[in-house]
Amino acid sequence: MSEKKTSWLKPSLDWLLIFVPIACALRFVPSLDNPTALFIVSCIAVIPLAGWMGKGTEHLAEHLGQGAGGLLSATFGNAAELIIALFALSKGLEGVVKASITGSILGNLLLVLGLSLLTGGLKFKKQTFNRTASSMSATALTLAAAALLVPTIFHEVAGRIPIAQGGWTAQKEQHLSLAIAAVLIITYILTLIFSLVTHRNMKSADSMHAMEDIGEELEHAGEHWSKKKALTILLTATAFVVLIAEFLVGAVEEAGKTLGLTEVFVGVIVVAIIGNAAENSSAILMALRNKMDLSLGISLGSSLQIALFVAPVLVFASYLFGKPMNLEFTLPEVFAVIIAILIVQQISSDGESNWIEGVQLLSVYAVLAILFYFLPDVHSAVEALAH
Amino acid sequence: MSEKKTSWLKPSLDWLLIFVPIACALRFVPSLDNPTALFIVSCIAVIPLAGWMGKGTEHLAEHLGQGAGGLLSATFGNAAELIIALFALSKGLEGVVKASITGSILGNLLLVLGLSLLTGGLKFKKQTFNRTASSMSATALTLAAAALLVPTIFHEVAGRIPIAQGGWTAQKEQHLSLAIAAVLIITYILTLIFSLVTHRNMKSADSMHAMEDIGEELEHAGEHWSKKKALTILLTATAFVVLIAEFLVGAVEEAGKTLGLTEVFVGVIVVAIIGNAAENSSAILMALRNKMDLSLGISLGSSLQIALFVAPVLVFASYLFGKPMNLEFTLPEVFAVIIAILIVQQISSDGESNWIEGVQLLSVYAVLAILFYFLPDVHSAVEALAH
Amino acid sequence: MSEKKTSWLKPSLDWLLIFVPIACALRFVPSLDNPTALFIVSCIAVIPLAGWMGKGTEHLAEHLGQGAGGLLSATFGNAAELIIALFALSKGLEGVVKASITGSILGNLLLVLGLSLLTGGLKFKKQTFNRTASSMSATALTLAAAALLVPTIFHEVAGRIPIAQGGWTAQKEQHLSLAIAAVLIITYILTLIFSLVTHRNMKSADSMHAMEDIGEELEHAGEHWSKKKALTILLTATAFVVLIAEFLVGAVEEAGKTLGLTEVFVGVIVVAIIGNAAENSSAILMALRNKMDLSLGISLGSSLQIALFVAPVLVFASYLFGKPMNLEFTLPEVFAVIIAILIVQQISSDGESNWIEGVQLLSVYAVLAILFYFLPDVHSAVEALAH
Repeated sequence: MSEKKTSWLKPSLDWLLIFVPIACALRFVPSLDNPTALFIVSCIAVIPLAGWMGKGTEHLAEHLGQGAGGLLSATFGNAAELIIALFALSKGLEGVVKASITGSILGNLLLVLGLSLLTGGLKFKKQTFNRTASSMSATALTLAAAALLVPTIFHEVAGRIPIAQGGWTAQKEQHLSLAIAAVLIITYILTLIFSLVTHRNMKSADSMHAMEDIGEELEHAGEHWSKKKALTILLTATAFVVLIAEFLVGAVEEAGKTLGLTEVFVGVIVVAIIGNAAENSSAILMALRNKMDLSLGISLGSSLQIALFVAPVLVFASYLFGKPMNLEFTLPEVFAVIIAILIVQQISSDGESNWIEGVQLLSVYAVLAILFYFLPDVHSAVEALAH
Repeated sequence: MSEKKTSWLKPSLDWLLIFVPIACALRFVPSLDNPTALFIVSCIAVIPLAGWMGKGTEHLAEHLGQGAGGLLSATFGNAAELIIALFALSKGLEGVVKASITGSILGNLLLVLGLSLLTGGLKFKKQTFNRTASSMSATALTLAAAALLVPTIFHEVAGRIPIAQGGWTAQKEQHLSLAIAAVLIITYILTLIFSLVTHRNMKSADSMHAMEDIGEELEHAGEHWSKKKALTILLTATAFVVLIAEFLVGAVEEAGKTLGLTEVFVGVIVVAIIGNAAENSSAILMALRNKMDLSLGISLGSSLQIALFVAPVLVFASYLFGKPMNLEFTLPEVFAVIIAILIVQQISSDGESNWIEGVQLLSVYAVLAILFYFLPDVHSAVEALAH
Repeated sequence: MSEKKTSWLKPSLDWLLIFVPIACALRFVPSLDNPTALFIVSCIAVIPLAGWMGKGTEHLAEHLGQGAGGLLSATFGNAAELIIALFALSKGLEGVVKASITGSILGNLLLVLGLSLLTGGLKFKKQTFNRTASSMSATALTLAAAALLVPTIFHEVAGRIPIAQGGWTAQKEQHLSLAIAAVLIITYILTLIFSLVTHRNMKSADSMHAMEDIGEELEHAGEHWSKKKALTILLTATAFVVLIAEFLVGAVEEAGKTLGLTEVFVGVIVVAIIGNAAENSSAILMALRNKMDLSLGISLGSSLQIALFVAPVLVFASYLFGKPMNLEFTLPEVFAVIIAILIVQQISSDGESNWIEGVQLLSVYAVLAILFYFLPDVHSAVEALAH
């Protein structure tokens, strides 16, 4: 039975692999040059590739044992997003990178979780989950929100003071961001130790286990990959993601202009939907099977990883490209993340869900999407804030 | 026993009907022309009329069966506030309308609930209620707060950018507000479907049932109205509310000046206390009978209705008057609503109440009333924000 | 056994009494004049003196019976902080006073509680506590945060309007602050009545009991002081705190400059760590004994006392010195307090704790310390905000 459902879902994503060669054609055949088409096709092509990276990671993790395997899952969980962001960073598209961090957090918390609670709630009148687990993740997210808000507050306050009297400078903002990135990544490492070492046997006690458990849930319908097969698939899928990510990032500016969308809207809404498509289908599937702990684990755990691991890694990586990125987000981005965390915390704090809670999350997502649609370009906004 | 308490309460409100003819005299007898007196008398006269509108609605709802009856209760629950706001809107008093939306939410969450928990808590050492129900309402309120904050954030950010580069314009703010109003009203309709259709039998599962249950609680002390009687009383009371609302709104500006109160203080504090007097007396009565689910249902449900139904309806209605209203509230209004929702959520999340929690809510109300008392006129503030 | 642990801890603080004569030497021997050394030595010397004040208060309280004794504990719990703040106020160091209020709240909520949960959690896999108690304190803290935010909001909004049209003036800010201070202190008195009179026998129902219970926990290892001994020790310790506080405040400006630290950093981080050292050691000790109700009671109760009692008392006291202080905090201070309260509320709402929650609190503290380290001087910031 489990097998049937899996085979019903998997093909739907694998069919999308057809867009990989199409993207290559659009990129390398001169007569087909069309950035907008390339952007859209690349977006779709990333979806199944991200799915295969995930599967490869999970199968490889099984061979590595609990500790190292868990670490691998936790670290590579958002590898596709990370690769896209690194390319954008190397091209100096700092605004897109930040917008896609925001978008990934919003997408996981509001869109993925909202759709899961809605579809699960339409099938089951009431679903229950472990409050302790979701509560720990929500707290970690609040910590992340506080950390991401600090550079914005710093700019807002120190920007009003002349530099001679200790006012805002880009260098100070950079140092501040580095210090905060260090705190975030240390917290992330300690969180991994908590969930993979000291509190491992706490059943479903936190979202770090979710990915593995989903692996078990999906895969133990018969198939078992050898270490070599898992590694080969992981590397092949990653190579293609790298290729397509380069297409996607190269075309994003041109495509945004043609479609009349601002950089921040593309980052927050478009890139985030694409980057989370794999999480989305898994989380909905788990909700339909009434395994809400896994469904929440995917969305909360993935947001957590973006905020505590991907964001600081990007700050450190930006130095390698010689284009230092700080952690200063725009006011609307910070506001959106805080609202999303507040509402997820409320919904998850009672350990029960129903379809209207899914609707509430999706409504918040719609309201925020409207805000980002109407907002003018983020860079202009940041510069306006600075002066 | 129940009858005695009811008869002890009812007369106290019905005696206030004497202010209806007084208001008419002040309005139509030229020698008695005094806007301040007219404003105060009209405020008091609305209280018993709103009570009779509520009773008429409940009795009529009984005849219509669960679905349609529930819809009627849910839609007409804040009819008096809606009528007053429509009059103010037609006179272009946008600031008063918005202030009374803010004030209605604050009044229900802090004043009505605070007085209920205090009076109930002085009689009973500890009172309990259904956490699930109050939690769902608190989440819906957070969603509403997010939605009402978006136009303010948009103005704050887009206002710093030149219009040529996509900066703030009144038209964009209008479109943004319309889109958000649409999301709110769709969410409201889905919430009604949830509570009146799919999760109807979830006992006290949400605040939409509260009004009906209160009807049963109060009325089944013997009296049963015929359909005709209910309809006649509802229409008569509504007609008088329309009349008095016209007096009230016509006198508000003049009275505010005479009393040295700003438009926003009148809207947030005065109009809100008047408009919620009926809810206030019912909610306190329920708390004294230790029926906390109903007491919370009234205050949370009424706030919800204002935010998800009355506010968007006013945006749409403003087009009929040719004086489009947006959903941009001033910073202090947004701040006050967010604080009120946060503290209500905290108090309601443990499913228990005692008198000190009532004191805490009333303290927050006092602090906010102080803020609005000291604040200069809201319109000047909005214009100052815009430049 | 209890005795051993106590004797292991006490000496470690009592040894610090050696810094009291050192501070006197630095202050009164002209050849040793060194403000930085005096500041550091005074900071350390206050720690054991505050501890002895606490012990004197508890023993005296035992002689006074429950009502008056509880009141004494509750009122003198933060006497050392209050004395330091009064000296700073008399010297016109308003920025330091406000920063130390902020710092005391942050220190208790994040540092004291974070270290308690971490050390307790390293010894015990899972610790539990009474949700109702911590929830009530968290609500009172939210109320305090709202109240402390109001003067900042008022300045931000009214400051944009010309004075002729009712804009911001220092006098209005002062009146607003007085009104809010009155609300806070009335709420504090009612909270005392709740916890010492009407709900006294509610076991551990709130944090006001914590101090006394800790007294019992620590002292009943044999020693019992006479009323005279308790009073003598309390008065002697207080006299020395007054002396050292005068040194500390007199040297703070000079020392801050020499160490390259801003006034706000000294207030928020340095003074707060010093002032809470006694609470810190008690709270950790309780966590190691798995008495989490007491551990949370210390940190939440102490923050509550600062916000609802010390802050308004300082506003009233400032008039005695002819240097009126308002309650307007800087944006980063207000932000830091709100974040701290939000995260404590999340962590305390499930009634369970483990070591990662301690890490999360300490991470937030680290992030905020980074912000205050980078921020330019608070006074310049306030003035920049005003223009």
